[in-house]
Amino acid sequence: MVFSIEKTDLIKSVSLEHFDGVRWDGEMNRLACELDRSSPIPIYEQLYDFIKKEIMAGRLPYQTKLPSKRSFSDYLRISQNTVDAAYQQLVAEGYIEVLPRKGYYVMASEDLEYSQPDLRSIAQRNVESKGVMHSFLPGHIDASMFPFKAWRRLAKEMIDTSRQDLLLLGDPHGEMELRREIATYLYHARGVTCRPEQIVIGAGVDLLLQQLILLFGSRAKYGVENPGYQVLNRIIRHFPNEVKTIGVDEDGLKVDEVVQGSMNIVYTTPSHHFPFGTVLSYNRRVQLLSWAKESAERFIIEDDYDSEFRYSGKSIPSLSSMDRLGKVIYFGSFSKSLMPSIRISYMVLPEELLTRYQQAEFGHSSVSRIDQHILGRFMNNGDFERHLNRMRKVYRRKLEIVLDLLKPHKEILSVFGEQSGLHIALIIKNGMSEASIKDRAKEKGIILRTLSDYSTVTEGYPPTIVLGFAGIPEVDLKEAMNQLLDCLKG
Amino acid sequence: MVFSIEKTDLIKSVSLEHFDGVRWDGEMNRLACELDRSSPIPIYEQLYDFIKKEIMAGRLPYQTKLPSKRSFSDYLRISQNTVDAAYQQLVAEGYIEVLPRKGYYVMASEDLEYSQPDLRSIAQRNVESKGVMHSFLPGHIDASMFPFKAWRRLAKEMIDTSRQDLLLLGDPHGEMELRREIATYLYHARGVTCRPEQIVIGAGVDLLLQQLILLFGSRAKYGVENPGYQVLNRIIRHFPNEVKTIGVDEDGLKVDEVVQGSMNIVYTTPSHHFPFGTVLSYNRRVQLLSWAKESAERFIIEDDYDSEFRYSGKSIPSLSSMDRLGKVIYFGSFSKSLMPSIRISYMVLPEELLTRYQQAEFGHSSVSRIDQHILGRFMNNGDFERHLNRMRKVYRRKLEIVLDLLKPHKEILSVFGEQSGLHIALIIKNGMSEASIKDRAKEKGIILRTLSDYSTVTEGYPPTIVLGFAGIPEVDLKEAMNQLLDCLKG
Repeated sequence: MVFSIEKTDLIKSVSLEHFDGVRWDGEMNRLACELDRSSPIPIYEQLYDFIKKEIMAGRLPYQTKLPSKRSFSDYLRISQNTVDAAYQQLVAEGYIEVLPRKGYYVMASEDLEYSQPDLRSIAQRNVESKGVMHSFLPGHIDASMFPFKAWRRLAKEMIDTSRQDLLLLGDPHGEMELRREIATYLYHARGVTCRPEQIVIGAGVDLLLQQLILLFGSRAKYGVENPGYQVLNRIIRHFPNEVKTIGVDEDGLKVDEVVQGSMNIVYTTPSHHFPFGTVLSYNRRVQLLSWAKESAERFIIEDDYDSEFRYSGKSIPSLSSMDRLGKVIYFGSFSKSLMPSIRISYMVLPEELLTRYQQAEFGHSSVSRIDQHILGRFMNNGDFERHLNRMRKVYRRKLEIVLDLLKPHKEILSVFGEQSGLHIALIIKNGMSEASIKDRAKEKGIILRTLSDYSTVTEGYPPTIVLGFAGIPEVDLKEAMNQLLDCLKG
Repeated sequence: MVFSIEKTDLIKSVSLEHFDGVRWDGEMNRLACELDRSSPIPIYEQLYDFIKKEIMAGRLPYQTKLPSKRSFSDYLRISQNTVDAAYQQLVAEGYIEVLPRKGYYVMASEDLEYSQPDLRSIAQRNVESKGVMHSFLPGHIDASMFPFKAWRRLAKEMIDTSRQDLLLLGDPHGEMELRREIATYLYHARGVTCRPEQIVIGAGVDLLLQQLILLFGSRAKYGVENPGYQVLNRIIRHFPNEVKTIGVDEDGLKVDEVVQGSMNIVYTTPSHHFPFGTVLSYNRRVQLLSWAKESAERFIIEDDYDSEFRYSGKSIPSLSSMDRLGKVIYFGSFSKSLMPSIRISYMVLPEELLTRYQQAEFGHSSVSRIDQHILGRFMNNGDFERHLNRMRKVYRRKLEIVLDLLKPHKEILSVFGEQSGLHIALIIKNGMSEASIKDRAKEKGIILRTLSDYSTVTEGYPPTIVLGFAGIPEVDLKEAMNQLLDCLKG
């Protein structure tokens, strides 16, 4: 069926392609199919979604006139009210605008990616469709805000005959262009002073940690924060090395336990303890560095995850910035600041370790060279900084919504770690166990993590929800939080 | 300086941008800078290079008129003869065409990537500029033939708001879309029967082997071909495991040594031994599989590198295709068939091992999810097969050139492994040692690998050059080979 809408009704010919049903490609057909009467998603919402995606994908450019409600409803065989509902929603969200006596016009361009925080994430929808309504996983980001356009442009530049050198193997430690950008970033943002040569790029913190474990050999003894991020625990299971847990209190890692325990490598998150957000106190930092300098084989692995996002108070310096003796191995990643799926992380090796690392010859780089150059250019041209600034605002706003909704419930919960990062810790004081909270949440289609997911020893800690708020679309956040609070009510 | 060439001299305005010196971006400025009078590269060749790159990058589209020789030479302050030399070279190579009384026109489009095998690779130039004239490294590919356009188009599709789900973490074993394509490819091309679920995607064979070593534990004993590809040797150094070398003869791996030695994991290249190209005989395959089935802890790692490129004789079936008992772990990679720098490899785990691998929980995938989807789509739409067919022709032609040039020198060398792959083995019989051949080659700016680079034990083997011919541009191949032959002359 060819849609015979009058040309005057559509300013740009590109819009016509959306109605004649002939020139649509596979992707667009799929979108069209989603106008599905048997779906539980209301038709107006499907239509809203469809138009929004077309706008975001640049197929309905800025100032394109949309079909009149009447012709659109005739074409789609739905009521004018349904079209109106979709249009009103788009107007409310700033995608389109109504001009009196003229009609509806696209107001957003692809650049909206930068300015509209509350686009519903498709990933979120995918999850929902499997019976999950809201996912509070701490690892999530707001994917709808990614600067696709800028990234795509750089990808186009790098995937080019003129860059055919990028097809061949590059530097096994990572491309110098990217390492230079990271060194500059670390100096300005985290006070880390290093030569680009000290940086090793790898496909994930896991892989880089694995290389370190191999480098330090089977006699090395590790200490890990407990509770804490489980990455080192997960990897070290495969190795014969001894591992001890180190407790955490309101001043951060209990360095006394490091000093008293027999260990030589300590894995820690000093600037933003995972998951409580505690900052390792100045005295303990000095104490930890002093411990490390007592032996050539003692090192501190500083995982500075999430450090890009600080919302209040002064910036917490990295432990590495205090290290004058080459005792701190700094770890960073682009999982939170860009996307978890890109698999680009890095570590900064002290000079003495760098020599040993080079001699170990761990083989080729584990990250695509083209991707490294896209990222390097993204950082070099200021896109990365702009993206971080934008995301800081987005996440701060989400955090404020969450905190506002939690405020009336102080008698049953306490909030920790709200100064930075993409999650907070909620200590629950209503007598429920973590397991029962999780069970009840699951019934409502809410995915949660609790402290026991990040601890090998949980004794002495109250029931705690580790609440990742970044991945939930702003429009859904209130509902998601209210449902969560329902789970906590007797 | 603004170039005041008459508009009539340039059909398309895009060309003007190349001369006014104002609207060029960083990349193009860099290219412009290469018109460098102090460079050892002749000016005409720099100009030729510049125009060719502009054409290949699509910035000088099909049928664009080039400036007249006179106006161009005025602008660049070089002689008309120099411009003429560059133009003639471009005409000879089919990039541009001269129309009588009209001028020079661009004849090539970006699609030239598919049809022009002998574009000089920029990577090659980069290497040359560091004093290396020709690199016969076995790991190289012909990067000039990569289908940038198709790849770029798919990248554009995947880096899109509509695919924002790809930013979040995916399947730790790799994206199902890609694993399905690989399973289909393996079935048709290599006779490997597996479910997509058995395939694990990883950032390089090194990483996947490392996971296997961890999975098998420290008591596993390994056997590796000697001479052979050194990847397992390189990794296992970091582990406490015992490793034995297994000899190779004209029937391939000496399976007797496997049976007699005490080992339980064998790493082998049965279809195309590295570097001799020997095929493991049928009897030995049966013998090896029988050995493996005698114990639950015995496995064979089949590295089927290079299997995409076979030029003569019937296809050699994979060892995995003969395996009915889940004893063969098949390894493949896209390093040769696409590009070494993409870091996408895979292994096919027998069902029983798959369960153990899943339980080991090696963490997130090491490959960018977007890249996995680009590749999956590239395979799904037939681009991959087309690319392989094209490259097979390109490499066969290069191989023929090499073999033709070697033919008159039978008294000083014998050729092995010319049926398949991107390298051949040259046994040298003129009394020179590998070290002296390498030294002499180095003086001439030629990079070579010899058998000792791929052996822990070299006794009993004659001096052998492992000659990778894929990375040298076809136009340079004759000169490169003649220089190499010069090194072998007394």
